[in-house]
Amino acid sequence: MASGLTTIVPTKLPGGKNSTADKLLVAASELMIERASIEVSLSDIAQKSGVNAALVKYHFGNKDGLLLALLARDAATEVSNLEYLLAQPITPTAKLKLHIGGIIRAYHQFPYMNRLIHYLLHESTAEAADEVSKFFVAPLLDFHRRLLAEGIKAGEFREIDPVLFYTSLIGACDHLFFGRHAMSRAAGIGPVTDEVCRDYIKHMEALICGGMLNERNGRMVSSE
Amino acid sequence: MASGLTTIVPTKLPGGKNSTADKLLVAASELMIERASIEVSLSDIAQKSGVNAALVKYHFGNKDGLLLALLARDAATEVSNLEYLLAQPITPTAKLKLHIGGIIRAYHQFPYMNRLIHYLLHESTAEAADEVSKFFVAPLLDFHRRLLAEGIKAGEFREIDPVLFYTSLIGACDHLFFGRHAMSRAAGIGPVTDEVCRDYIKHMEALICGGMLNERNGRMVSSE
Repeated sequence: MASGLTTIVPTKLPGGKNSTADKLLVAASELMIERASIEVSLSDIAQKSGVNAALVKYHFGNKDGLLLALLARDAATEVSNLEYLLAQPITPTAKLKLHIGGIIRAYHQFPYMNRLIHYLLHESTAEAADEVSKFFVAPLLDFHRRLLAEGIKAGEFREIDPVLFYTSLIGACDHLFFGRHAMSRAAGIGPVTDEVCRDYIKHMEALICGGMLNERNGRMVSSE
Repeated sequence: MASGLTTIVPTKLPGGKNSTADKLLVAASELMIERASIEVSLSDIAQKSGVNAALVKYHFGNKDGLLLALLARDAATEVSNLEYLLAQPITPTAKLKLHIGGIIRAYHQFPYMNRLIHYLLHESTAEAADEVSKFFVAPLLDFHRRLLAEGIKAGEFREIDPVLFYTSLIGACDHLFFGRHAMSRAAGIGPVTDEVCRDYIKHMEALICGGMLNERNGRMVSSE
């Protein structure tokens, strides 16, 4: 599940590549996946990693520092995927579809990522929120700007504001995971399984590309 | 700004119509709007309303009880608006557009509503989350089911799953308010002004109805 991730070294780690810090991040990530929660204690992380608890403080300052480094690690993977996607010899529309699937799959594969983003943006310190903005929000917004410009230039996309686009796409993807348990309470709606995830990817691709109106109705199909 | 709202009596208020409880809710809502925050103390609310602080406990149990009653009050207004909208003699597409504008304007007009929903769903008790699901999520989802069925029957909408639709629409609208301050840190993006709100309504109407692909590209305009 976490293949390739442990080779990414977050820029915030003191001293760059650091196997002790890496071990702690791997342990934290595994615990969060096992428990389906970001509520893990520093002593649990230390125990699972076989690292002395005092070293957590040495490497990350405190627990929020460790959570931030973990999110930075995973965000770095996602950001490098965005660059890779943008460079592919495929149409902007194909890139957009792959991007939609990529976001939803990333949230599904790392369920704690979404919770960490919300926690660090809204419940931690202003410094933590700034960091998340820098390594997560800004690169994603920049990717959207470039992809939209490419699609508009190619004549595939209509003119669309990148900031408004970012807000609606990320909000919609995020809500499958963040909003789901509220919905399951309300209406007997089950958890986000692999199948729900695949269905949502299809739904979002169709909605973002073509909307929900029928071809023959409501759309200005011709200029007549 | 709060015209008509104070006449709505939340179902959770002990004893139905209750002017003391109403006064406390009005004071809480005004304080939250003034401070642009849901961090208001019970003693501030008591002082502003001119009601003895002990009565807060009597009417609402505790602060989360008061917050829940406040959200229930505002949700009741929104839900009655949904019923009103559904009964109008206009096309399903016109109802959908009015609904999109309605959600975004409601969040903009009552900035604390979005924060309260997040707080009560994710940071309060399981009972509070159940209540929010019952009076906010369930009626909205039910409205979406009925509106989509009407639009599909009229031949205006393609087949679309109501739960996935709910997730994407509410997620996208919510994110303008919940995600915005993260974006402003990232990229010098300003706060949600009236103008941003109007632009986002236009953006969401166009995206949900027709997507972002140009007419001549990518869409199966005819069956040829």
